[in-house]
Amino acid sequence: MSFYFEVVKTQGRARAGVFHTPHGDLLTPVFAPVGTQATVKAVTPKQLEEHGATLVLSNTYHLHLRPGEDLVREMGGLHEFMRWPGPILTDSGGFQVFSLAQINKIDEDGVTFRSHIDGSKHRFTPEVSMAIQESLGADIIMAFDQCPVPTDRAIVEAAVARTSAWAKRCREAHPDDSKQALFGIVQGGIFEDQRAASAHALLPLDCPGYAVGGLAVGESKQEMYQTLDFTLPLLPENKPRYLMGVGVPDDLAEGILRGIDIFDCVLPTRLARHHSAFAPEGRLNLMNATFARDERPIDETCDCYTCKTFTRAYIRHLIVAKELLAGTLISIHNLRALIRLMEQIRGYITDGSFESRVPELLIQWSNNAKRNQAQRHMDTET
Amino acid sequence: MSFYFEVVKTQGRARAGVFHTPHGDLLTPVFAPVGTQATVKAVTPKQLEEHGATLVLSNTYHLHLRPGEDLVREMGGLHEFMRWPGPILTDSGGFQVFSLAQINKIDEDGVTFRSHIDGSKHRFTPEVSMAIQESLGADIIMAFDQCPVPTDRAIVEAAVARTSAWAKRCREAHPDDSKQALFGIVQGGIFEDQRAASAHALLPLDCPGYAVGGLAVGESKQEMYQTLDFTLPLLPENKPRYLMGVGVPDDLAEGILRGIDIFDCVLPTRLARHHSAFAPEGRLNLMNATFARDERPIDETCDCYTCKTFTRAYIRHLIVAKELLAGTLISIHNLRALIRLMEQIRGYITDGSFESRVPELLIQWSNNAKRNQAQRHMDTET
Repeated sequence: MSFYFEVVKTQGRARAGVFHTPHGDLLTPVFAPVGTQATVKAVTPKQLEEHGATLVLSNTYHLHLRPGEDLVREMGGLHEFMRWPGPILTDSGGFQVFSLAQINKIDEDGVTFRSHIDGSKHRFTPEVSMAIQESLGADIIMAFDQCPVPTDRAIVEAAVARTSAWAKRCREAHPDDSKQALFGIVQGGIFEDQRAASAHALLPLDCPGYAVGGLAVGESKQEMYQTLDFTLPLLPENKPRYLMGVGVPDDLAEGILRGIDIFDCVLPTRLARHHSAFAPEGRLNLMNATFARDERPIDETCDCYTCKTFTRAYIRHLIVAKELLAGTLISIHNLRALIRLMEQIRGYITDGSFESRVPELLIQWSNNAKRNQAQRHMDTET
Repeated sequence: MSFYFEVVKTQGRARAGVFHTPHGDLLTPVFAPVGTQATVKAVTPKQLEEHGATLVLSNTYHLHLRPGEDLVREMGGLHEFMRWPGPILTDSGGFQVFSLAQINKIDEDGVTFRSHIDGSKHRFTPEVSMAIQESLGADIIMAFDQCPVPTDRAIVEAAVARTSAWAKRCREAHPDDSKQALFGIVQGGIFEDQRAASAHALLPLDCPGYAVGGLAVGESKQEMYQTLDFTLPLLPENKPRYLMGVGVPDDLAEGILRGIDIFDCVLPTRLARHHSAFAPEGRLNLMNATFARDERPIDETCDCYTCKTFTRAYIRHLIVAKELLAGTLISIHNLRALIRLMEQIRGYITDGSFESRVPELLIQWSNNAKRNQAQRHMDTET
């Protein structure tokens, strides 16, 4: 088997695992940096590797529009094209079609939409999404889904029905997981019966992994956690579980506590471009004049290149002087902060201390969140 | 002596040397990347080191305006601030005062000008330039000069007189070269008698090195080379000679042939931000559709990270998708191309083959220049 998941250690519902892929083993829990357009913004693959990144996500919608999946395939596939030697995950394009594109028409068969770049007309169906993702060649590919407003029951019910039918068609179009693992996406908003219905439709497809979609898109944190509480027990123990679009640190800890193995989010790199850095005392806006003469690194406990090398004063100077290096240096730190958090939590699960450490993690990181209000979901970077 | 220059090997007028500085030895000839605002744009110090950079130039005018020399001094000086462990050179601010700032008044004592950033009023004199450069703490500091239009005799004569008087005042303000080496700048445009007059005024100051200023600012290539032909014999053999603002590859070779040891230019990083890369077949504009499916590196003979890792097709995609990584990758290559050319020429001088190889170097690199017209001087990056 090219893809298989081993649970190495559990503590409560939290799991430390290994997901074996053709491009290497992923130690879970894992946080995937987002490389929307086949690049994690402002960071080289070498810098990603040096900072412990293992899984990178790229976006089907964006790559379809630019440079096009045919070109990527001709160039040897996404791994070769962007020179990322490790595992890659592509999303289905569904989320972007509904959030970024100007939609012309949704029907039972698929979605016709116009590009947000040049207004050109395109059509995605489950079969098209599979074909594009096969051309791109990522290790993990996602079923084409509809991600609804999670708190509107009528909309959620329709989206679950559509997502179930589309997932079946994705499986028919992609029956063989030997080269690329097709993950199903459980929808259902915040409604327990809808999550159950969605899981019930997807489990017979026997996917090598399942995602929880449609969260962190506007519901409260409490609603998200409750939804995870009743959704995760519906999913197989022996397969990885992926919480899509989540990257706020306390949500990562809460997700792992409930049994999530994989996360992705643009948050670390997007925050960096807005001068915001994860630090022990909360998110720092490094443009603030407070930091003009601050000789400390962003985080004295961090082992990243940025923190081992540069002062807050220097990074603030780069921001004020509008230097590109600022974005690179803060991105490196923010990515490493989340990757390191995953490594730490994996260690805690392995040594059995995770549950007892959750309160301190949440105090540290919800402090981070509180100081910056609830900016939980940040969708695909453009 | 903190600073001293050893000529290791000569071939004709070309020299391979070592300039010893408190922050390490510079093997010459050397090309210095420009880090205008205490950063070489879009490149980390680590990437610079990995690609053989040894000397970095930073700009007094820019650092005075932002973040200010007092802040840099408080942060431990420029080496500590920007985390560049090797030698640093700062210019005097003279060139930018005349080219970037809105000048209010030039007088015999100095220049009053308004900032190009916020219109604030400032005054540079020889003494002020020395004080700022002492606060910044670079290894090599430059005398405050006036860089004239090189082909207008009356303007050149006045500039030489002023530069001579100002250099004397710089020397009086900075009499001790033990921590920072003050280089004089020979002006005189394209006029042999004026270059002689300038050198005659500067040599008694016994500077540890001398620059040739006021070239590559509008005169023809032939005029520049002729000026070097009659200017360099005026300068001491046992001190390094610095040709300011020159970075076009064939000009580097022509300069070394005439006895130049040090160069600096924004060209490699500025070209990179305009998608232009040095390549064996001439400068490439990598945005061109020709490269959409080009699986070759920018330069198959190059040993830089970019060429060892990425295809032209991928870099073109990054440019089209407006990704910051494009600028970083092309900057790395362009910088390495010039640094490697210096390493090659040093090797040729050492093994006695330089003069016989000049024709092939000029054919290769003037080909580069010809294809892109005479874009020789690119002044300080903003």
